[in-house]
Amino acid sequence: MNEQTRTEIMALRREQNVAYVASVNETGYPQVKAMLVLEHESPMVHYFSTNTSSRRVAQFRGNPKASVYYCDPGSYKGALFTGTLEVLTDSAAKAMLWREGFEMYYPKGVTDEDYCVLRFTAETVNYYHGLANATHAVKELL
Amino acid sequence: MNEQTRTEIMALRREQNVAYVASVNETGYPQVKAMLVLEHESPMVHYFSTNTSSRRVAQFRGNPKASVYYCDPGSYKGALFTGTLEVLTDSAAKAMLWREGFEMYYPKGVTDEDYCVLRFTAETVNYYHGLANATHAVKELL
Repeated sequence: MNEQTRTEIMALRREQNVAYVASVNETGYPQVKAMLVLEHESPMVHYFSTNTSSRRVAQFRGNPKASVYYCDPGSYKGALFTGTLEVLTDSAAKAMLWREGFEMYYPKGVTDEDYCVLRFTAETVNYYHGLANATHAVKELL
Repeated sequence: MNEQTRTEIMALRREQNVAYVASVNETGYPQVKAMLVLEHESPMVHYFSTNTSSRRVAQFRGNPKASVYYCDPGSYKGALFTGTLEVLTDSAAKAMLWREGFEMYYPKGVTDEDYCVLRFTAETVNYYHGLANATHAVKELL
């Protein structure tokens, strides 16, 4: 991967407030949902939060195959990370990702049993800009 | 489905310029890409265009299970349609969807062999607005 591609992928990961997180449901259909990006650090590990009771959590517990897509439709740029997603319910992970305002979703606070952390670990990234399009190992971004 | 939900789903389908189209690849991973919404008519049948040679077309030919997601992240609204997707290469379908400016992607014009039509047929729609969330048969929208 050349330096410009690396810079563009990292900028997309850093600048988007929303990512599109995809799962496969129990009947084999792909599902996608916009989720808030809570951190913008590593290209390999991406964290999200959701309700432990949600259909999405049940899907990932049944099938960890996932992808996370960051895009800027206006400039025809997109980075699709593909890998696996774990559902974390331990108190260290929950405390790490907790943000002000989460009480709206999880009224009992950081120990709310209905609050959990999704940890996505990417293996590959497909990046396109205009008509150019290539897939890379995420390790090349580190 | 109540009338307000129906109105909101149809508005999302009508007002978005981009939809997030999801497939399952040959190793079982979900994949997602932003695609231009070229028409805003039926809640059951949604059309997109892409390159016949693309990885995405190969995925849908191997596995037609798909979803199409329209969302307005700012207002926490989203409609996820789930169903199946067919790749059409017949001249009637290609002429129906052809738009001015497509020459940028398909230099040979409407008969370009690398231009094809994706026809998605939805069976269900999951709609959320804020914390409310429910899945309906698409027939309820007709």
